[in-house]
Amino acid sequence: MESKTAEATKTTLTDLVLPSETNPLNNMFGGELLARMDRAASIAARRHSRRIVVTASVNHVAFNHAIPLGSVVIVEAKVSRAFKSSMEVYIDVWTEDRESGLKTKANIAIYTFVAVNESGRPIPVPELIPETKLEKERYEAALRRKQLSLVLAGRMKPNEATELKALFLKED
Amino acid sequence: MESKTAEATKTTLTDLVLPSETNPLNNMFGGELLARMDRAASIAARRHSRRIVVTASVNHVAFNHAIPLGSVVIVEAKVSRAFKSSMEVYIDVWTEDRESGLKTKANIAIYTFVAVNESGRPIPVPELIPETKLEKERYEAALRRKQLSLVLAGRMKPNEATELKALFLKED
Amino acid sequence: MESKTAEATKTTLTDLVLPSETNPLNNMFGGELLARMDRAASIAARRHSRRIVVTASVNHVAFNHAIPLGSVVIVEAKVSRAFKSSMEVYIDVWTEDRESGLKTKANIAIYTFVAVNESGRPIPVPELIPETKLEKERYEAALRRKQLSLVLAGRMKPNEATELKALFLKED
Amino acid sequence: MESKTAEATKTTLTDLVLPSETNPLNNMFGGELLARMDRAASIAARRHSRRIVVTASVNHVAFNHAIPLGSVVIVEAKVSRAFKSSMEVYIDVWTEDRESGLKTKANIAIYTFVAVNESGRPIPVPELIPETKLEKERYEAALRRKQLSLVLAGRMKPNEATELKALFLKED
Amino acid sequence: MESKTAEATKTTLTDLVLPSETNPLNNMFGGELLARMDRAASIAARRHSRRIVVTASVNHVAFNHAIPLGSVVIVEAKVSRAFKSSMEVYIDVWTEDRESGLKTKANIAIYTFVAVNESGRPIPVPELIPETKLEKERYEAALRRKQLSLVLAGRMKPNEATELKALFLKED
Amino acid sequence: MESKTAEATKTTLTDLVLPSETNPLNNMFGGELLARMDRAASIAARRHSRRIVVTASVNHVAFNHAIPLGSVVIVEAKVSRAFKSSMEVYIDVWTEDRESGLKTKANIAIYTFVAVNESGRPIPVPELIPETKLEKERYEAALRRKQLSLVLAGRMKPNEATELKALFLKED
Repeated sequence: MESKTAEATKTTLTDLVLPSETNPLNNMFGGELLARMDRAASIAARRHSRRIVVTASVNHVAFNHAIPLGSVVIVEAKVSRAFKSSMEVYIDVWTEDRESGLKTKANIAIYTFVAVNESGRPIPVPELIPETKLEKERYEAALRRKQLSLVLAGRMKPNEATELKALFLKED
Repeated sequence: MESKTAEATKTTLTDLVLPSETNPLNNMFGGELLARMDRAASIAARRHSRRIVVTASVNHVAFNHAIPLGSVVIVEAKVSRAFKSSMEVYIDVWTEDRESGLKTKANIAIYTFVAVNESGRPIPVPELIPETKLEKERYEAALRRKQLSLVLAGRMKPNEATELKALFLKED
Repeated sequence: MESKTAEATKTTLTDLVLPSETNPLNNMFGGELLARMDRAASIAARRHSRRIVVTASVNHVAFNHAIPLGSVVIVEAKVSRAFKSSMEVYIDVWTEDRESGLKTKANIAIYTFVAVNESGRPIPVPELIPETKLEKERYEAALRRKQLSLVLAGRMKPNEATELKALFLKED
Repeated sequence: MESKTAEATKTTLTDLVLPSETNPLNNMFGGELLARMDRAASIAARRHSRRIVVTASVNHVAFNHAIPLGSVVIVEAKVSRAFKSSMEVYIDVWTEDRESGLKTKANIAIYTFVAVNESGRPIPVPELIPETKLEKERYEAALRRKQLSLVLAGRMKPNEATELKALFLKED
Repeated sequence: MESKTAEATKTTLTDLVLPSETNPLNNMFGGELLARMDRAASIAARRHSRRIVVTASVNHVAFNHAIPLGSVVIVEAKVSRAFKSSMEVYIDVWTEDRESGLKTKANIAIYTFVAVNESGRPIPVPELIPETKLEKERYEAALRRKQLSLVLAGRMKPNEATELKALFLKED
Repeated sequence: MESKTAEATKTTLTDLVLPSETNPLNNMFGGELLARMDRAASIAARRHSRRIVVTASVNHVAFNHAIPLGSVVIVEAKVSRAFKSSMEVYIDVWTEDRESGLKTKANIAIYTFVAVNESGRPIPVPELIPETKLEKERYEAALRRKQLSLVLAGRMKPNEATELKALFLKED
């Protein structure tokens, strides 16, 4: 299998916040944004693997800014690292001001997808090649997140999580 | 403000998986489950705080089992710990076999909500009292998760995250 | 087939009233509540029969209280009586005040479901055992409602509807 | 207020059964049909009253025929009788065979609506004039149904329900 | 194949504008109206051909009047002309004022559908017989529109489009 | 008002075809694609004008290729020409093959939007600067389409539509 660049997986889903997608404060529902990010990220993972992909986990999503009704929301998903049959996808979310045209970062999220065959069993995916500085940082951090996920699930002993351990032992 | 038990916040959302909520393998979309958990968890957080609540973060969601079209899905949300104005909500998801009636654990998820006033500013919430063994374990773990979240966001130095540090330094 | 208790069929669907589910007065659409009750009641009937179930009739639904946008709505369905292959399901609907936490009864509805096999033909269901005082009252009344339904459909002569006839002839 | 004919309130909602509106047997969900009938009936009631109308009750709905995915469904609603501020609406549902073009009666339903002012309080509606034989039969039966509804709700004594009582006492 | 009248294909879809179908000015979304017209028009085309039909093109839609939230919208579709396997469908859209009951023309649209067999290949359709003056005018104009469509798609030379050419060469 | 390039208005909406968006042949509904193109095109028009925009017309949409369930659909909208207060938006639609990753052109559509103020009245928009060969071709053709639209609406005499007239009179 041929390795692919992160850029080749980039998926952009630009859409409006409709009235049916808002909470009582007239901002976009967290659940709607989660669903939209899931669709964009699954397309990015599919572009990398060229297979059916299923959501394996949502690693961390912070809702830092409220997104008002009527906003233009830009969801951009890129595979950040490929493992054996799983892919970590990094999602950046911006809103765009109508009058000034300025884009504001609204959210960051990290999802993991697994490539599967027609009967739903995991199958191998190509390696991912990070190119830009940001892609490389996210590629490195993906390993730490994977270890953390395994530790929290009890499938790796904390002292085997070498990348993660270093984080908590380093001098400040 | 009067403290409340975890049990008092328990919210059950039992519903079917409809055809519009499935992926190409005829299983429930990850995004739809994320949205449904968000609604149930927001009601649990609202029952604890009696305020408007907004999703602050999704801490970790693992999709361990595919949920086929037509399944009965039981989403049960309970506040696991209250902080100053935020609440961690633990969500257990089961499916129920039609013929045997057996319930299978399908997912676990952890969301964080913030209580806000009418203009969207955070306001204090009551303390949460865990009662059962499971509620107490989740209450304890919630503090470690909060520290982890602050460390990953760069808002706490790793060596100040005492609860978390212990996890990676303990003997095995 | 083993008889089952009413309690074993209890199904709770707690959810919010979203903006897309409201009428021009900003209250929940009757049609949306009817659909939500149908889904909860079908799960209760399925829990009793462990079969595919289809809606046979909606016997009476009174919309006594408007349910405003943003409300928490609790739909609770329980089988009230089983006949040969049909089941009457009683549905209680409450709303919950955000500030006081008080629950208010908003609606009562009665649906009938039929258990069917894969080709859609009716099949027998177990008997239902009412336990509480309320379950027993509803179990008794279910027979009168069935007779009324048969009379109105022209499939039973009024003077054979003994239970119902008594109602109109009794002294006041 | 000027009386109006039943014909003047006739409302036709012809639409397809979409994949998102079906149950596991690939037939239209009962809940979806209930919602569609509610919208058509509310328009009929609004045409009679020229006011905001809200669903007051669903009197009886029998789901006699399954409606498969892809069907053309014709929902036709007409006000059958007007009371002080409420209106009974009779709804006939047909499906149409694609190849033969034949229409088959699939359901009958009866809803009651109340006309309200901007603050949601009931206001008077004009009288309804039935013209055809069928409209006259439904107009007469509407009174019996109203009495039955009042009796079942405990707001009328059975022996005051003269129309209804006659039904159970008449010779066969 | 037996020819059919335009009247025999008439399809009426009367429905409300729900909150989830509005734009930031609280008027009906163009996209929602396009979808509703597509469904009504496809039923008209299906009534003419008694076959599966698929949308081939949207010829011209002018959104002349905003349609506010809560409006009653009447979409009426009729086949205006049948060609070999395609059908032009003319769609008239009205809104109805709640208080006066007056109908206002809101839009006109023209869609083209193709009748297909189970594997999606075009199949012949019956001829359409226009009866009223308006039906005849639309029937005539349909040929000009078809030529225009072929010219714009580069599948007909402009000087072969005799009907259309006349339009631009005639004296004023 | 500062002129803007076509490129600055480019809007990409990449999304899946979900089960609820398909017709009986399991292909994407024409109506759903029309709605999705409307949302993407409205964002492009908004990026050009930085104003509220409303759909004025859909000029021509040809559905040349069926888009199956589960496809990745890429909707790309760019303003092709700005007039006084209206903007023509050109929309290209591709699907992407999962296995080969190849993009296939599925549709082309042309929508017109009008920029309006808060009370819905048209307001001027900046000029559009086409840069690439394709942008320039579409910019030129936009004038002919506008004339055609005015002629068909009876608001311009055919012999005043100089651009259009030339098309039908030129030698072949």
